[in-house]
Amino acid sequence: MKGRNLHAAIHVSAVFAIWLAALMLIPALTDLYYGNPDWLVFAISALLVAVLGILTAVATRDFRPTYSVRFAFLLVNILWLTFAVAGALPFIESSQKMTVADAFFESMSGITTTGSTVMTGLDGLPPGLLLWRSILQWVGGLGVIVLGLFILPYLKIGGSSVFKLESSDRYTRPFSRLSTFATSLLGIYVASTLVCAVLYAMTGMSIFDSINHAMTTVSTGGFSTHDTSFEYFTNPLTHWVAIVFMLIGGIPFTALIVLMLRGRFDTFRDNQVLVMLAYAGALSLAVAVYLELSKTEDIVPAITHSTFNIVSLVTTTGYASANYLQWGSFAIAIAFMATFLGGCSGSTAGGIKAYRWIALYGVLRRAIDRFIYPHAVASVHSGKDKVSEETLDTVLLFFAAYMLLWALLTVALTLTGIDFLTAISGALTALSNVGPGLGDVIGPTGNFDSLPDSAKWILSFAMLVGRLEIFTVLVLLSPTFWQE
Amino acid sequence: MKGRNLHAAIHVSAVFAIWLAALMLIPALTDLYYGNPDWLVFAISALLVAVLGILTAVATRDFRPTYSVRFAFLLVNILWLTFAVAGALPFIESSQKMTVADAFFESMSGITTTGSTVMTGLDGLPPGLLLWRSILQWVGGLGVIVLGLFILPYLKIGGSSVFKLESSDRYTRPFSRLSTFATSLLGIYVASTLVCAVLYAMTGMSIFDSINHAMTTVSTGGFSTHDTSFEYFTNPLTHWVAIVFMLIGGIPFTALIVLMLRGRFDTFRDNQVLVMLAYAGALSLAVAVYLELSKTEDIVPAITHSTFNIVSLVTTTGYASANYLQWGSFAIAIAFMATFLGGCSGSTAGGIKAYRWIALYGVLRRAIDRFIYPHAVASVHSGKDKVSEETLDTVLLFFAAYMLLWALLTVALTLTGIDFLTAISGALTALSNVGPGLGDVIGPTGNFDSLPDSAKWILSFAMLVGRLEIFTVLVLLSPTFWQE
Repeated sequence: MKGRNLHAAIHVSAVFAIWLAALMLIPALTDLYYGNPDWLVFAISALLVAVLGILTAVATRDFRPTYSVRFAFLLVNILWLTFAVAGALPFIESSQKMTVADAFFESMSGITTTGSTVMTGLDGLPPGLLLWRSILQWVGGLGVIVLGLFILPYLKIGGSSVFKLESSDRYTRPFSRLSTFATSLLGIYVASTLVCAVLYAMTGMSIFDSINHAMTTVSTGGFSTHDTSFEYFTNPLTHWVAIVFMLIGGIPFTALIVLMLRGRFDTFRDNQVLVMLAYAGALSLAVAVYLELSKTEDIVPAITHSTFNIVSLVTTTGYASANYLQWGSFAIAIAFMATFLGGCSGSTAGGIKAYRWIALYGVLRRAIDRFIYPHAVASVHSGKDKVSEETLDTVLLFFAAYMLLWALLTVALTLTGIDFLTAISGALTALSNVGPGLGDVIGPTGNFDSLPDSAKWILSFAMLVGRLEIFTVLVLLSPTFWQE
Repeated sequence: MKGRNLHAAIHVSAVFAIWLAALMLIPALTDLYYGNPDWLVFAISALLVAVLGILTAVATRDFRPTYSVRFAFLLVNILWLTFAVAGALPFIESSQKMTVADAFFESMSGITTTGSTVMTGLDGLPPGLLLWRSILQWVGGLGVIVLGLFILPYLKIGGSSVFKLESSDRYTRPFSRLSTFATSLLGIYVASTLVCAVLYAMTGMSIFDSINHAMTTVSTGGFSTHDTSFEYFTNPLTHWVAIVFMLIGGIPFTALIVLMLRGRFDTFRDNQVLVMLAYAGALSLAVAVYLELSKTEDIVPAITHSTFNIVSLVTTTGYASANYLQWGSFAIAIAFMATFLGGCSGSTAGGIKAYRWIALYGVLRRAIDRFIYPHAVASVHSGKDKVSEETLDTVLLFFAAYMLLWALLTVALTLTGIDFLTAISGALTALSNVGPGLGDVIGPTGNFDSLPDSAKWILSFAMLVGRLEIFTVLVLLSPTFWQE
């Protein structure tokens, strides 16, 4: 392992940390405007991160990386860790006086767009701190889109598919130059957030709530400014705006770009978009019918609540509009399974993701047929596109790694003394970057605050591993990676 | 699909049903000896099954199968179903007056060597009925050894590995003729059972209990003649005899044959045996240390109970010597994970099995290295043996199918109204042919009696699918299977 790669990765991360420091000025100005003394916390944090970032960037400026997969793996890990550490600073210094474990957990939950929180009394928190949580998720969402579009395909994580398959050849490279692409990406991300915020405000949300929730909706993050999350909002239209924008957050960002820049809807016909909409729709309907049959809710609110919470889980956002764990064991099982599903590749959603389910289904069907006709030659398809054998292998490996890691994290969490249901669902919700787990402790109306510090560190690790699609972190644990 | 294959499969199953009818005479004679009126139930059941079996066998005698994978798939499914149905008859007609769902569940749990039970008040049951439960598991264990040694390799389920890998080339075919092999197999199975029974009796078990438990130990079945299972026996030596013979039930039967006929121990050096012993030992030790540290038990009984219950789960036997669910969440998590593990291929154990874990670990390690060196050519090994790429694929597919089926069965079970923990652990314990689940209802001190009939049918299906290694049943659900 070339040392200069490590230095170069630190250099790039330091430069990005300076940008994060600049973003800290937004909550600083907000708190100043509202007359909250925490403005100073953000100003100091910004200064600290900026100075450290500049010093580090200067100290490492002479290292040119070998542009290799190793450099990319290192960069992605160090970058996300840097963001999590720098993002945690304001939480520690703030009037909330959070512990290091709490602050790191909250920041990691933000930057990975997970949405699990250790903070209570959100409704009474200083506005700057609430805004900072939202900004972390919004930046994390943008980071994940870039990761999914440019870096993961290069690393062949999830198969070269991740890029190829969210976009057919027609629109893989709709932009002649990278800078045009970067500008449109940022522009459309900002525009989607603004449209979402305006629609939220029109349904009766306050301006502050609208801006915060818009940022945590399009990033499928899930942080709210209220302890009761979306249960706080009583207008069903607010819930439907959230449903639409959570789904938008779950589709490949390229589809959005092609729509906005070219006015073309055809990219939505991508098979993974259809599959995600299909399972989100089917599960929402099933739970709504179950609620209606069990007389828990009238049909109209049943459909709203069922769709809201299922879409929230499937897109790995993590908002809750009701305590769906009280809807009976079928709803609990569906919520649990929905925590695995995930949105589309190249979106801000986490989880196993639609494309992998398509590939898994196809490869299992083929396997069954091959038991009958061992010499049958058949390809697996996603829509009209053939899925390469290499991608099928990677999908199966990813699925196995996901499940095994989930099991190991569960066992590790029980060693911290927390109960089994909290451990098994907490490991899953962190790995899938969803937010809420099952049970009274970390369920949709619960909170991660009461967990021991050791559990918070394990869950922070799980969020990072899940966000970086597992193998990106696991390679660093392999001795092979560090060999010359 | 040739109709004559179906008829031929029914013919073979009918012939085996006649043998099962003959075995019903054992509990009949036992009840007659003890003066219990249920002897008539067994006599009538035997007559009924024999007559139906003979009539069916005669009616289908002219159909010669095409010896094909389709015939083998059909035969295995129909044979196990026939055994489950015929085995259920005495339960329905007996003095216990069980419902059809209960009787079928109990019989399926027996013939698949699962060990989940719907019967309570075992200590006061007629001896014939208790013996019948043990005989079903003993026969089921024998059936599964034959399935694993001869049929699954032919069907390439679990890779051609299942046979090849439990035995290196040195002893794949240690017997010149099939009849010699069949005789030694039966002889050694009977001998192991007798030795186990004698040792049980020497540690203080009654003769009747010794015979019953010996039959359900070597078959890794887990039915007991007492409601409290092995908690009933207070002599630690009894538990250690069980531990040894459960482990013997979990190793490839070929290793046992080679040992008994040739006096050679080298077959135990098979990598999957070592891996099974390693994870059973590691988990037992971890739980014992946990018990000791949490001051729940003194170290000596802690080791006995921990080892007994972990080995019981790993070998998919399902006895319990204590309610390990009260040992804290770490023990619960370990018990849950142990329910996946399983013994060796070619044994009476179920679950995912040691060989597949070796292959999974190897293929994941290789995948991680390939992210770093994409063009690295490396084979996956089990011990010194190379694992073929075809086997690796099949193992990954099996693992994915296992997990997905587990999820679907869980959701289906919650629709019957049972709680989430019972559903998710019930689906798993049935699929792995273990026996007990988690929670108060179906945990080690619980019972499947209180579940609704619909749940019992779903679980019966899960036991069958798990026993036949999943794909054997799934192929029948594929339209391809039924095409000409």
